Amino acid sequence: MKILIVGGVAGGASAAARLRRLSEKDEIIMFEKGEYISFANCGLPYYVGEVIQSRNKLLVQTVEGMGTRFNLDIRNWTEIVGIDREAKTVTARKVATGEEYTESYDKLILSPGASPIKPRIEGIEEANNVYTLRNIPDTDRIKEKVDLEKPEKAVVIGGGFIGLEIAENLRERGVDVTIVDMSSQVMAPIDFEMAQIVHTHLREKGVQLLLEENVSAILDGGKKVRLDSGIELESDMILLAIGVMPESTIAKEAGLEVGVKGAIKVNEHLQTSDPSIYAVGDVIEVKDYIHGTDTYIPLAWPANRQGRLVADHIHGKEAVYHGTLGTSIAKVFDLSVASTGSNEKLLKRLGVPYEVVHVTPNSHAGYYPGAAQLNLKLIFDKETGRIYGAQAVGKEGVDKRIDVIATAIKGNMTVLDLPDIEIAYAPPYSSAKDPVNMAGYAATNIMEGMAETVQWHEIDEIVANGGYLLDVRSPGEVAKGAIKGSVNIPIDELRGRLDEIPQDKDLYVTCQVGMRGYLAARILEGNGISVKNLDGGYHLYSIVYR
Amino acid sequence: MKILIVGGVAGGASAAARLRRLSEKDEIIMFEKGEYISFANCGLPYYVGEVIQSRNKLLVQTVEGMGTRFNLDIRNWTEIVGIDREAKTVTARKVATGEEYTESYDKLILSPGASPIKPRIEGIEEANNVYTLRNIPDTDRIKEKVDLEKPEKAVVIGGGFIGLEIAENLRERGVDVTIVDMSSQVMAPIDFEMAQIVHTHLREKGVQLLLEENVSAILDGGKKVRLDSGIELESDMILLAIGVMPESTIAKEAGLEVGVKGAIKVNEHLQTSDPSIYAVGDVIEVKDYIHGTDTYIPLAWPANRQGRLVADHIHGKEAVYHGTLGTSIAKVFDLSVASTGSNEKLLKRLGVPYEVVHVTPNSHAGYYPGAAQLNLKLIFDKETGRIYGAQAVGKEGVDKRIDVIATAIKGNMTVLDLPDIEIAYAPPYSSAKDPVNMAGYAATNIMEGMAETVQWHEIDEIVANGGYLLDVRSPGEVAKGAIKGSVNIPIDELRGRLDEIPQDKDLYVTCQVGMRGYLAARILEGNGISVKNLDGGYHLYSIVYR
Repeated sequence: MKILIVGGVAGGASAAARLRRLSEKDEIIMFEKGEYISFANCGLPYYVGEVIQSRNKLLVQTVEGMGTRFNLDIRNWTEIVGIDREAKTVTARKVATGEEYTESYDKLILSPGASPIKPRIEGIEEANNVYTLRNIPDTDRIKEKVDLEKPEKAVVIGGGFIGLEIAENLRERGVDVTIVDMSSQVMAPIDFEMAQIVHTHLREKGVQLLLEENVSAILDGGKKVRLDSGIELESDMILLAIGVMPESTIAKEAGLEVGVKGAIKVNEHLQTSDPSIYAVGDVIEVKDYIHGTDTYIPLAWPANRQGRLVADHIHGKEAVYHGTLGTSIAKVFDLSVASTGSNEKLLKRLGVPYEVVHVTPNSHAGYYPGAAQLNLKLIFDKETGRIYGAQAVGKEGVDKRIDVIATAIKGNMTVLDLPDIEIAYAPPYSSAKDPVNMAGYAATNIMEGMAETVQWHEIDEIVANGGYLLDVRSPGEVAKGAIKGSVNIPIDELRGRLDEIPQDKDLYVTCQVGMRGYLAARILEGNGISVKNLDGGYHLYSIVYR
Repeated sequence: MKILIVGGVAGGASAAARLRRLSEKDEIIMFEKGEYISFANCGLPYYVGEVIQSRNKLLVQTVEGMGTRFNLDIRNWTEIVGIDREAKTVTARKVATGEEYTESYDKLILSPGASPIKPRIEGIEEANNVYTLRNIPDTDRIKEKVDLEKPEKAVVIGGGFIGLEIAENLRERGVDVTIVDMSSQVMAPIDFEMAQIVHTHLREKGVQLLLEENVSAILDGGKKVRLDSGIELESDMILLAIGVMPESTIAKEAGLEVGVKGAIKVNEHLQTSDPSIYAVGDVIEVKDYIHGTDTYIPLAWPANRQGRLVADHIHGKEAVYHGTLGTSIAKVFDLSVASTGSNEKLLKRLGVPYEVVHVTPNSHAGYYPGAAQLNLKLIFDKETGRIYGAQAVGKEGVDKRIDVIATAIKGNMTVLDLPDIEIAYAPPYSSAKDPVNMAGYAATNIMEGMAETVQWHEIDEIVANGGYLLDVRSPGEVAKGAIKGSVNIPIDELRGRLDEIPQDKDLYVTCQVGMRGYLAARILEGNGISVKNLDGGYHLYSIVYR
């Protein structure tokens, strides 16, 4: 069998290695339009920041090394410019010479990836200091700029993964960084209130953050960036990080079906509308694992997984890609920011009813050094307990909790099962009730009618409309800040002061993170008084409205 | 309803708090024979080592604080010395005065915990420097000894969790520590080859480790410890850490059924043989989650979980304890050592057939600073893919992988599902194929007949009996150490040197960690040559036999 692979990074490289392990006989040719195959995409920003010091470390596999090891014919500097599905051939063009030739295939695997979106901004063509970060040459250009010209001010357009990672690494190099994002938040996979923790941290780290701002023009050959609001930012360098688009041009030209954002449509075996042609990675449309809807989620884990599955399917194995959950994580200075599954924004858009809990336990036992507050959000179906998604932000243990919940989702576990996940506990690692257990308990309480909650975005209006909000924290905590209109009765005095609770008002209760509020609610309910607890407490409220 | 709780730590305290949240009306009395309730058991060794500096941090909840918050009648310094099941009363004795009184109950919850096993060793009664570590007074005594007398040499008898943790913390205080254990390894929950990594690390950290040694006598009032082998160890202090026994005396006297190690038998609702009496935590026998067999697993997570479930069941909720998986972890100097489910030792004892894979990937992307080798072992049923257990040892990311696999077990996932767990990937946290995915791939290859393996303990005999062992590492690696009798053909030369492979011998292949060996096996199989790969490679072999 003769198999051609277009693109030698992530999905393509995974497919090639697995194909060879499945057969010594196949002829496997892997084309890569650039110089490098299988490089460390996700490490690129850290080379700019000199966290990764050796450029060689970015080159995970070399053309020669991988070619020999897996007996592959790897042709770098070779772009595939056309597919003839009838003839089952591709047209390859040597980048250096422009020389073209055809190569036949029995199976074709498309893994060309995606390319950074370059918006049409006035003045962008005239600027000579606009960068994107996607591959090694991009990285070399940015690093050279920083090394040689020591830019003082950088404007990063877009607050997604790449934008934040490059912002952090430019800060590490002493560059003043401004991030501009059209939306009200950075990091689209998480919801606004969780992003607010990130916003505060970015500002603490000296990053200027301009949200709900749109770039209207690049001026003076790139020396200034003008925003719709009229703000003008000085810019020794401009980083474009507003997202990527699938590199699906040749697929479209060959008549393969495309979907969301022009990404190639594939079936559960990752076959395109032509069953001899597979596609993987950042170029394909995937099924949302939770909802089964079509979506576009360019991430490294799915690309690698898909590459392997395609090799398996070509060799007649049962190979089904079940869709993408979208589990993702980014380091943002001292924070880790992670999520899995659906966020509130998506569920609202899909019209799916859901319930939310926020818990804020320590990342490990509070009495052991280094414990940090973990902000964990769980989104679920109140009727069935189905887990829709989770988000976590904190300085420690974020990845672990999101991975556990991602595993629970894949295991079809519900929020009712989360308290039962028997984690590895010793003081440096967790608490006897892990944050995942805690989130499960909180969700279970809601499902079982033990707790009713209101969210951070509801409480101001509730109080304004005459709701009675009881704050059960200590007077010392309340003195540091409280929700306007709240009335303080410390939790430990509540049982003795029940007569102070008004009988004629809708009652709400809050505390710092929601735990004492929940106990207060139980005390009040136990005395025949209906009450709702502010989920996430004053901690979450103050994060959002600080 | 009037509910009595015997024991105010972990399970007892959990039950009390949940009971109050379920009802404001119940009368809840919690007895504790010592001074302190709800203290940080698992933190005690770290206070000795001054990793936890403030003694107050060990006192998670105080009698007064918890009593007020949850409206509990907490009676510390009060021991329960008898149960009259007929009358539904207990006899309480005030420790200070010996005064006794009875207290009636509707429901009784036993959470007295366990106590350190004190073996009958010659001379132990005469020694004044023998310590156990279970509670705050124990800890105070040890810390005072170290603070005031500055002991130079300590002998720790027993290499379990407590033994290792106290050994580490005594080393932190500058004490020379010798650990003596009767078995061939420390840390019983993991298997021997994994424990060897721990053994090496302990020795690197200056701990003297004497395995397969039994203490025969304590001499000179504790100044010396004599072993069966004749070795005599100087001992300024002696720590007894050979395990714990359930404190089930009053339960037995009351005629409640007991099982393994004298632990109280409970049903799935944690009721003893008397349905008005519940028992939780280190005093009960539990079901092994994997096999359903009766066992004794004293750990903090189950105790806390059980406490809550008992409260739920008393209040008529569906509350089932599904058994204990035994997920556990210990910090051992720079290593984390964790496991979940069954180990090989148990499966052999039960006569359950199983398969094993060892993988040794980086804890996160190798090109990002701080990545450390993660030794991950997965044990499963080759026919069904059922996960029996996992063990991990390394400097980073150990807890996360064990928690993910523990979650997978609770979600009834098989090893075939592990490659599909979509983890949160960015270079500081993982690789695009996480170690859990890698272990799943390795196990899947075995199930699908893509790979046959032999284990570290089989290979010497195989080679001695004429098996041909091909080492496909580079000559430079081989020069640093190789398995006796192995023949070196580097992987990248293998395809060109197939004629060197003997036709008349049983063939085996190895490399450093098993990855290249697997590829070599695929190359050979692809050329019609049957071969088995040494699981874990020379890395694992050299760990065991170093």
